[in-house]
This record gives sequence, C-alpha cells and structure tokens, in this order.
Amino acid sequence: MTQPPDDSYRQPDRPTEERVENLLDSMTTAEKAGQLVGTWAGKLGLEQDVGDIKRAIRDHHLGLAAPFGWAGAHAQDIDDAVAAATELQRIATEETRLGIPLLLNADAVHGNAYVAGATVFPNNLGTAATWNPELVEDAAAITAVETRRVGAHQNYSPTCDVGRDPRWGRIFETFGESPRLCAAMAEAKVRGYQGDGIGDPDGVVATAKHFPAYSEPDRGEDASPVDVSEYKLRNVFLGPFESALDAGVASVMPSYNSINGEPTHGSSRLLRELLRDELGFEGHVVSDWNGVRHLHDDHRTASNRRDGVRQSRVAGLDVESVGHVEAAEHLVSLVEEGAVGEATLDESVRRILRLKFELGLFEDPYVELDTAHETLGHEDHRRVARDVSRQSMTLLKNDGLLPLTGEEDVFVGGPNADDLVHQLGGWSVQSPDGVPGKTIREALESRLGGSLTYEKGTTLNEERDIDAAVEKAAAADVAVLAVGEGWYLHEFGPSAQAGVDTGEWPTRSELHLPDAQRELVQRVQATGVPVVGVLVTGRPLIVDWMAEHVSAILMAYYPGSEGGVAVAETLFGENDPSGRLPVSIPQSMGDLPQHHDYLAHPRPIGEDEHPASYDPLYPFGHGLSYTAFEYETVTLPADPVGTEGTVGVTVSLSNVGNRTGTETIQVYARQQTSARVRPERTLVGFERVELDPGESVEQTVSVPASAFGYYRPPDGHVVEPGEYRVFVEEHESSVRIDNQSA
Amino acid sequence: MTQPPDDSYRQPDRPTEERVENLLDSMTTAEKAGQLVGTWAGKLGLEQDVGDIKRAIRDHHLGLAAPFGWAGAHAQDIDDAVAAATELQRIATEETRLGIPLLLNADAVHGNAYVAGATVFPNNLGTAATWNPELVEDAAAITAVETRRVGAHQNYSPTCDVGRDPRWGRIFETFGESPRLCAAMAEAKVRGYQGDGIGDPDGVVATAKHFPAYSEPDRGEDASPVDVSEYKLRNVFLGPFESALDAGVASVMPSYNSINGEPTHGSSRLLRELLRDELGFEGHVVSDWNGVRHLHDDHRTASNRRDGVRQSRVAGLDVESVGHVEAAEHLVSLVEEGAVGEATLDESVRRILRLKFELGLFEDPYVELDTAHETLGHEDHRRVARDVSRQSMTLLKNDGLLPLTGEEDVFVGGPNADDLVHQLGGWSVQSPDGVPGKTIREALESRLGGSLTYEKGTTLNEERDIDAAVEKAAAADVAVLAVGEGWYLHEFGPSAQAGVDTGEWPTRSELHLPDAQRELVQRVQATGVPVVGVLVTGRPLIVDWMAEHVSAILMAYYPGSEGGVAVAETLFGENDPSGRLPVSIPQSMGDLPQHHDYLAHPRPIGEDEHPASYDPLYPFGHGLSYTAFEYETVTLPADPVGTEGTVGVTVSLSNVGNRTGTETIQVYARQQTSARVRPERTLVGFERVELDPGESVEQTVSVPASAFGYYRPPDGHVVEPGEYRVFVEEHESSVRIDNQSA
Repeated sequence: MTQPPDDSYRQPDRPTEERVENLLDSMTTAEKAGQLVGTWAGKLGLEQDVGDIKRAIRDHHLGLAAPFGWAGAHAQDIDDAVAAATELQRIATEETRLGIPLLLNADAVHGNAYVAGATVFPNNLGTAATWNPELVEDAAAITAVETRRVGAHQNYSPTCDVGRDPRWGRIFETFGESPRLCAAMAEAKVRGYQGDGIGDPDGVVATAKHFPAYSEPDRGEDASPVDVSEYKLRNVFLGPFESALDAGVASVMPSYNSINGEPTHGSSRLLRELLRDELGFEGHVVSDWNGVRHLHDDHRTASNRRDGVRQSRVAGLDVESVGHVEAAEHLVSLVEEGAVGEATLDESVRRILRLKFELGLFEDPYVELDTAHETLGHEDHRRVARDVSRQSMTLLKNDGLLPLTGEEDVFVGGPNADDLVHQLGGWSVQSPDGVPGKTIREALESRLGGSLTYEKGTTLNEERDIDAAVEKAAAADVAVLAVGEGWYLHEFGPSAQAGVDTGEWPTRSELHLPDAQRELVQRVQATGVPVVGVLVTGRPLIVDWMAEHVSAILMAYYPGSEGGVAVAETLFGENDPSGRLPVSIPQSMGDLPQHHDYLAHPRPIGEDEHPASYDPLYPFGHGLSYTAFEYETVTLPADPVGTEGTVGVTVSLSNVGNRTGTETIQVYARQQTSARVRPERTLVGFERVELDPGESVEQTVSVPASAFGYYRPPDGHVVEPGEYRVFVEEHESSVRIDNQSA
Repeated sequence: MTQPPDDSYRQPDRPTEERVENLLDSMTTAEKAGQLVGTWAGKLGLEQDVGDIKRAIRDHHLGLAAPFGWAGAHAQDIDDAVAAATELQRIATEETRLGIPLLLNADAVHGNAYVAGATVFPNNLGTAATWNPELVEDAAAITAVETRRVGAHQNYSPTCDVGRDPRWGRIFETFGESPRLCAAMAEAKVRGYQGDGIGDPDGVVATAKHFPAYSEPDRGEDASPVDVSEYKLRNVFLGPFESALDAGVASVMPSYNSINGEPTHGSSRLLRELLRDELGFEGHVVSDWNGVRHLHDDHRTASNRRDGVRQSRVAGLDVESVGHVEAAEHLVSLVEEGAVGEATLDESVRRILRLKFELGLFEDPYVELDTAHETLGHEDHRRVARDVSRQSMTLLKNDGLLPLTGEEDVFVGGPNADDLVHQLGGWSVQSPDGVPGKTIREALESRLGGSLTYEKGTTLNEERDIDAAVEKAAAADVAVLAVGEGWYLHEFGPSAQAGVDTGEWPTRSELHLPDAQRELVQRVQATGVPVVGVLVTGRPLIVDWMAEHVSAILMAYYPGSEGGVAVAETLFGENDPSGRLPVSIPQSMGDLPQHHDYLAHPRPIGEDEHPASYDPLYPFGHGLSYTAFEYETVTLPADPVGTEGTVGVTVSLSNVGNRTGTETIQVYARQQTSARVRPERTLVGFERVELDPGESVEQTVSVPASAFGYYRPPDGHVVEPGEYRVFVEEHESSVRIDNQSA
C-alpha cells in the first residue's frame, strides 16, 4: 500500500481538528463513505464471517464493525472476541491505504454480556428497581471497562425509552414507566460508560437509544408506529434523552419505528431539527441495525434501498451500523450524482474520525488478551453486580413467611429456578458456559441449613412431571417457585435461541402466566406448603392468582449473573428487599396502558360509577421491606419557592421494625390548576435511606422547582406559578411556586 | 311585560339578518347571555323539573332547554314531551320581555328513542353494518320528523367519531373503525336530519359530535385523554367531521376529553383555528352537557367554574347546553368586567337568533299532540327501521345450519332473547312500555311452524336456572341463544338503569362474555343440539369459544325496535344477512388496538417470527350470505388516472349460490411508496349489489382519486403520484395515479 502524500494526521502531538482535516483531505469519496458504514461477523439475516469483514475493509474501506458483543455474533468468548478485534484492526491499519483503525461497537446493555465470562448485571428494568443512580453509574463503569478490554469502543446503550406498554417485548430494556426515574438512570449510565470523557481508556462511547419515542408502539408490537403529540413527546419521552445529552452522551441511535407517519431513520425533522438544532447534539448518529433498509422494505417511504440510504443521509444519519458493502456503494454513487452533498458526507466523516482520534486508536488500536481475562468477571465487578441485584429485589407480597430462617427444608421448582440463561435474560449469551454466577437453586443450596429438593415441574410452557414437583413440595417446609419468562430479545425470540416458538408464551398479547406454570403454582399451593413465588421476568406479569393465594412474591426481574445469590440472600433475610417497582403491574390486559402518572380527566358517568383510571395489581413504587417504616411528618416550605429554586421535602422517617432496612422516599406531585392537563400525580424526586431498628432521621429530598414544571407547546418548558400538591406515602401537603421568590 | 321599543324583528317578511340585528339591538347583556345557556328537566346530577326551567326562562332569560329526549328526562312519552314543549314555549314567548322562543334539543341518536312510541332504529354500529348510506339517510329523515313533531329542534347527532377502541363504552354510537365508512354514514345522517335545510319543517338541526377526537381514549376509558398527532388526527379522526360539514351540518359539539393536554371545550386552537378558520364552519358550537364545568372540576385547567365559562367563551363555544342559571350569571359578569368581549357574546347570540328565525319559531313555536301521535312510530317509519335492521344482520359463522326451515322445534334462551330494552340498547327509553316492536323470542314465535320453548337461563351476569334451559334446549331441534350486552350509556351505566353494578360486566376491561353467559352457551352446546348464537351487543365481543364450537353466529348489534323481527327473518331465511362488520372483532384483549388499516412497519425479529399485526377473530368487512358470490375479475384503468380523476374499479360478480343475496363490494387500497407511512390497506370504496341466483353483473365502484390520498402535514391533503395497489376480495391489482392524466 502506498502512503498518502501528507500523513501528518498520524502525529499524535497535533491538535485533533488538524489531524481530522488533514486526513479528510487525503480521502477519496469511497474512503469517506466507508468510514460511515459498519458491518458484522455472525448471523444477522445473512451470515458473514470475519473474512467478509476483512474484505469489506480492504476493498470497500469500511471503518466500523461488530465482530462480537451482540446476539448473532460468532465470537462469544473472550479469546474469540480479542482475536477478532486484533485481526480486524491489523487489516484496517496495515492493509489499507490510509491505515485508519476501526471503531468496534457492541450491545453491552447490562454488562458486556454477549462475551462469556463478563460480569452480567440485571437488565435495565431490574436496575431501575434499585432507585440508586450512583450504584448504576458504578455498574456502567464496570461494563465500560469490560467492553473496552476486549476491543470494542462504542456501546449501543443506554436505553432512554420510557416503558409505557408492558406487552412490548423490550420493556425489560427500559428503566420503567417514570420519565423522571428513566432520566436519572440514563444519565447515570452515560456517566459510567464515558467516565472522564472519550479519551478515558477505561470508558466506551455511550449511545442514547432509541430516539425519540419507541417504547409505546401500537398494540405493544415491536417497531410498530408511535403516534404522539408534541405534548406527550416532550413530557413523557424526551426527558431521558435530554438527561443523556446533558451528561455528554457521544452518540444517539434513532428508533426503528415511524413517528406520526415519519420513520425516524429518514426524518430530518427528528434527527436534524429536533436532535441537533434544538437539543444541541453534536455527536454522531448511528442507525439501529437495519433501520435504513426498513425505509424501503417496511415503511415503504423509500422507493428502493438506495433511496433509503439517500433519505437517511439527508436526514442526518452518520453511521449505518450494518449497511455493509451495499450501503457504502450506494453512498458513493449518491455523492457522485449529487443526491447527497459532499458537505453532508464530510460532516459525518469528521465526526467519526474525530472520535477515533480522541479514543487514541491511531496510536494503539489493540487490546491484550491477558488483561481482558483479568478484567472480565473480576470479583470486584461481580460484587457490584451483586449489589445491584440485591438492591433490585422487590418484595411484592409477604404474609410473614419471609425471611426464612435458613433452617427449613426447602423445595425449589419452576422453569427459572435452575436456569442461568433465563436469569440473565436477553442481551446476553445463550449458554451458561463460562458465565460466572449461580442459579437460584444453587445459591439456595449453598446457603441452606436444612435440606433442599428440586424439581422443575414445567418449562416456560410445558408441564414436566408436575406430580413429582408436588410430591417433593408437600414434603418440604416451604416451596420456592421461580416462574416467569426466559431469555429473549425482540418479541420473545429469536425462537431458536429462546426455545419458544413464535406465538407461544411469552407473547405480546398475554401477560398472565401460561397454563403450565399456573398449574404448577396452584397444585403446589394446594398441598398446603407455604409458597414463595419468585418472578424472573422481563415484564410486569399479571400474577393475580398468586397475589391472592401464595404467601410471598418476590419480583426478581432478570437479575443477571449474581441474581441467584441475591434471591437466596433475600429469601434468607441477609438482604433486605429494597427494590421498588419501576413499573406498574396491571391487573388486567384490558387496563393497558396503566401507569401512575395518568392525566386528569372527566368522568361523565359520575365519580361513583366510574371504575378507577389507575387500579393496578401492584402500583409503581411498590415494594415491601422486612422492617417497617413510619413517616411521621412531611414538611414543605411554608413560603413560596421561586421557579428557579428548590423545594425541600423534609420527611421524618423512622424504622419502627426490628431489622435494618432501606426505604426509598418517593415524592409525587400534582399541579393544582394548570394551563394544560397534567398528571394526577407524578414522581418528582426520590432518595434511598438505610435505617437501623429504632433509628429515625429527618431526611430532605431536594426537588428542583423545574421538576414540577412541564413542556407546554409552543412555549417550551415552564414552571407555572401556583399551588402544587405534594404526596409522600400517605401524607399530602402543598407548596406554592412563584416567579418572584428566591 | 313591556314590549321593546322596536319590534320589527317580529315581522316575518323582513330579511333574517335584519331581524337578528334588530332583536340583538334590543337585548340587555343578561338577555343575550341567556340565549347562550341551556337547562334541563330531569335528573342530571341535580334533579330539576319544568318549573325550574320556567323560572330560568322568566328570571334569567335562558333560551334553550332539554325537557325530554335524553336519558334522565322526566318526560318519557309523547304526551309529556308535547306538554312540556308547549308549556315552555308559552312561557318564553308570552312571559318574557322579548318573547324569544326556545330552542329545544334532544339526543335522538337512533330514532327519537327517548320518547316511548317513537321508531327505534339500530344504534349506529349496527346502522353502519348496512354499508347503505341511502337507507341511513332515509332513517335519519324519519328520526328528524319524529323529533320535530314533539317539539325539539336540534338533535345532538350524528356521532362522527371513528371507533378505534372496542373497550370504550360508546363504540356502539360510532359507525365503526373505518374513516371512510364513518364519513359516508355521518354525511348521510346530516342530510337526512336537515332535509332541505334549516327551514324544512320536517327537519332538525344536526350536531356533529364529538369534535375532533374522542373515540380512542386512553385505556378505552370514557372521556380520558386522547393523545394524537396532526397526522393521525387528520387521517383517522377528522374525515367524518369534514363530510358532515360538507353536508351543511349546522352545529358541532366538542369532545369531553382533552387532546394533547388541551380540553376541547376550552381550546381556541381546536374550536376557532381548526373548526372555524381552517374547516370553515359557520354554525354554532354547543357544549356536551357538563363539558364546561369539567374544565375546572376535572381537567383542572380553569381555576374555578366561572373561569371555565370564560375559557370556553374565549375558545369559541356558543351554547353551554346545561349551564343553567349559574353559567348565565357567570357569563354576564364576565362580559361586564371585559373578560369576555361584547363582540364575542354578540357573535354567538347572532348564531342562535338566526337559527330560531330560520326554524320559523318566531312565527310558530308550537307542535300538535295529534300530529305527534300520528307521526311517531308510523308503520311507514317502522318499515324503514326493519329494513335497516335487516340489512345490518351480520352472519359471522354458519356451518350450514342456517337458514332454518321454520318447521323446527326451537329453543330460545339467553339474557337478550326476550328483552326489548336490551335490544334497543342505550340512548333509548329504559322501559318497554309503549315501545313498538317485538323481542327476538316474540318474533321467532310468531313466525315458527314448529314449537318454541323459552328459558332465559341467565341474566347478563347471573345464572338463572341454567338447568332448565339446558333441559328444554336438549329437547329441541335447534337452540337460539341471544347473548351479549344490555342497555347502557357511558361506561355501562348508569347502574340504576342498566341493572348492572359498577365494575360488573359489561365493563371496559373485558370483551369476553361473562361466566354466566359462557356457562349457558357451553352447557347448551354440550347437549348436542345445534346452537345459533345471536349477539345483541354494543361492542365487538371476543366470542372465541363460540367461534370454535357453535354452528352459527349472527351479529345483531343493538338492532332497535324492529330488531326482533329482523333476527327472526334472518334465521328463517326470509332475509339474506347482508350486514358486514364495520369494526374488527379482536381475538384477545392484548391485541388492541386492532383495525384493518394499521400502518406499515418493520419487524426487526424477522417476518417469520413476528405474530401478525392484524389477526382478528373476524375481520372488518366480514359477513356471510346464504348464497355464494364469486368475483371473477377485478379490472382497473390500464392508463394512469389524474389526481382529480376517478378510479373505476370494475368487478365481475356472480351469485353462484341458489338464493337471492346481497354482496357489498369492498375496495381497499395501499400506496406502494409514499412520503409518509401509510396503512397496509384501507377501505376506499364500497357498493351493495343484490343478485338473483345465477345472476352476474359487471359493477363499477367509482373511487375518487382523492380517496387514495392522505393528509400530509404540513402540506394538507395530497394525492401523491405513483402506484397504488387495489384489493377486492382475493384479487389484487394496481393503478397509477399521476398529475398529468385526465
């Protein structure tokens, strides 16, 4: 290969912008286009191997790749990931004219969980249940270094979607239903991932997804259209993205779906006007996998795939994640014929080159296999994962059976009692090989003084000797039944990996447990043995029968590699369940959408005859402790607070039980009279407090007055002067906010 | 009472505008305000009698009233209605200073059905199933004259809402899910009501409601918020209102709910900018009953009720339907202090006075009792009602059992077999006294050659000797089970009238039959007697078990006073069931919203693994005949059609069965590539055709090219040049539309 005439871009002491311009000047249109198109090794519809990526780099100048770290990738362990990263960087830097290193991306959404051996945190819904952003930031920092050490630089995370439909097969990837809680968590994740900034050698580029509204699709059907007013878009969906931007997120991914008739991947209004011009985003926009192809193939807003490439470029997309050679060729021809401007192309290329320079890839694109092995799954990392799992444990019901003494004879059963992969949930390897951690059964066994018997009884969908399970359960002092969902990605598949055929449960139209699991629970309960239900699930399931009949229900979400231990510690009382529901559990499919912050509205039939708007099986924020807390007083500022000020909500809280426990103070608010219709109540602040038995505190939750405000089209975000009702537990009081006050 | 100085407004030969201005000049602010506020006699929260109305007229100048013709009215029969109208007009014209006659309004939504003795047509969902706008126009004309003859002048009908959520307790008031079908029906109703115009002595003022989007509330909960983009608002909800406006509708009613945070009753953007400025509406806007009070009490966007009155006036409301004295007093004080402009007040008063002059009320505000008795329920009217009922009968399933010979021994049972009030459905009197027509049981009995046995077996919710029903059924040749819902208004109440407690079925969260009814059907089916299920219901019920097991299912909707006869005629084959579903029947609560015109979208999991977006129990447009039709060819123009042209869809259709029958040709279309995402297919045209056995026709359904277009914000309605796929039955072909062609 010949070197370009001027290679001053290779000199690390030069300013980044100079290096970018110098390199850009040397590039052909094809070389530029290649920097904006990614490819993959693995099965993504079409199957490709590392050799295909190498050819795409050598012959078509492709500058981004995903050789590991996602569902269909061939490389699934540390050795293969590092080998692939090393080989591809060698090709890119040594066998291309300009020697531009690759940017590698991964789906490390709850740990670098597609690489066996990495620490696997709970999926996001469980993570949100901790209501602990500081801890979530620590977890994200660990994910970052475990991702970076195997050679990837960009993480297609965090999810900023506000989960408003539990039918949707991706709600477990969200931080739940509250815009406020989602925003806090998304911001924490960005900080954790990006560390001290893009130059941080332990950090990765974070990607806020799926901009701007993906998570309340029609019928809960993945990638189906979202129809949303400006009012709801701003007040429900945009907040977490804005928080991610505030935290400096370097990349944004558009949503697959169309919004109000416009597919996001082709929408200049959304990607340029809203994201860049209004929200001030300066990073790069990466497509969601085949999001560009969908413009023609599915949305039918492009006349062919090439036209889809054109639309996405005009709309402001920088990187087509898996466009492969075809997309690069289309882009070249579009630029050559003027359908995509050279300036548009250059603007995107600058963003990618700048990132590669800032990441230090031109100086050293390589990783070390030994360091990777030392880093991934390190005990310090797993300890944090255990903390996240512990703090996520949400006790929905307890008639006093829990905590166990540890001396009981315990029966454990159900499809999720002894399945590490189900416990990880989706966006993780589909084999337990090399994954650290214990299953629930293993963790119970290792901690138990009494004897433990096990019988699965049922898979997710099919009975497997329930009789044997019932017999063993009847002989025990207590039965722990781990029921729920298994590993899945989008829409409960792919079926080959999820082990569940299309349309079988879990499926979007049904949140009740399937017959086989209900049969197991009901028959074990009928023996008279006290039953603890443990829900390992990505979605809030309608466990109405269990809620009425069994002794205790623990919501474990997908608790990750350390989740088995966290469940066992919780059942035995070593861990006080301090998780609180980040999402409502409805009591009927017919009640959807069901969320705490529903808008005020009339009841023409009369209040008495109108079934409640919000009547879930378990409400948002619910979660029991093994101790008891008492809220003696809730005090608000007597004087008006200024719109730029802070409302201090002071709570006197006591632990009146006889165990140490953690309470999450939750502050909800309602505006008394507003220019637009607002929620009956909405979460505005929260704070975790640990108290010893008998201990009391005066804790002030500081809520910025701005959190009481809302987006009022066309004026923007406003805090209207007036009275605001504030709700903490059973206490209700009010505060005035006005323009004049300090 | 002293006469005003100039009373030239009393002279009928003067031009209306002159009379309006003359009268307006004579009026005090209080007299003006009174013309814009209505009141009631009956139970509407508070109970008032005719005496209260009289005082409100005498002392507070109120100019509108509803003494009969709605759910809570005291007057429920012809004599009482005429007496009330007469007495109130006498007070208004003889005992007030200006002698302005009253405008009386009624909820005559499917016939003047709150006056016992009137002809009761099927509710709208059934009416829509006829797909016969001409017949619907005839029915509306009958409703008009039966309303006018008892003294009312304005009908709070037609519903222009597009019914998109079957949980909603008012979907039976809609014409179903298709904007196209709703538009055709709404337009037909306006023409029928208003006849030759406001001066038509046989007509009534039509009221298009509930503007602009009411029918897809959150959770299917009545009057809960609608969040909707401009894209969807225009493409789904506005069409029927635009058609009603095109037909000259004289009044519009805002929706109770908020839209994108703005309550419609207080929204200048919706009532002035959209309705008047953009859509060009020049008539008067009447509040939905307590819609103005809701601004303060429920939406909380007004600081008190008086402020709600102010907001609604500023927004452009003309009449507060049941504001009574309080609203009039608020309005006076608001005008006096300048919070509502005198010009705003005058603008509204002109509209009401103009209407009263045009209606001829100043010349003669009275009706005749004899004429009323002769008119209401006239046999000619009931014949048309029978035709509507007959044509609405929608045969969902038939294994060959139907039609019956009429010689069988028939068992009939179920809660709706012998209940005339249930058969009428809501918006009708709640007593069968004086209502013409037969129940299903009575009609079957009168037509049957064999013997008939009857046993109810169950109320809507509670078993009533199912054993007896089963025993009688087992002895019969066939069992006809009339199941479904009963009489209700909003949200399945009020409970006192509906006979069902709040939360009991029917309820918004459940579309399956309740246990008692399922038990009846399953036990009768288990006897081996062939079962015909007749669904008397306001909503599309999930009758999945019946769909699998019983021999035949006839969807009867709420078929009205003549519905018993129509059902019997259909079962005996005297009427070919030519109804076609105007709404999809879903197969699961988890599938909502489920409608035929869902938007195209990606399936990231892959087409094979993605459960279908539209997979109803019975699709929109479904309905069987007793004969069989064959679509031999469907021919479209080979040359491009101009955007202003018409696409002739020519169908060769044959009746290949051995009975006369009626087919509704349904034309669906999909745009191949569009600037915005469009439906996979949507209804664009239809036509009923009756064919004798062996008869064939070439029938051309003329679809304006504009029907293939859509509203594309911000450009307005466009017909984009390009290819359109057209679907008729199993045939698919395509047509090009372009700008150049004729």
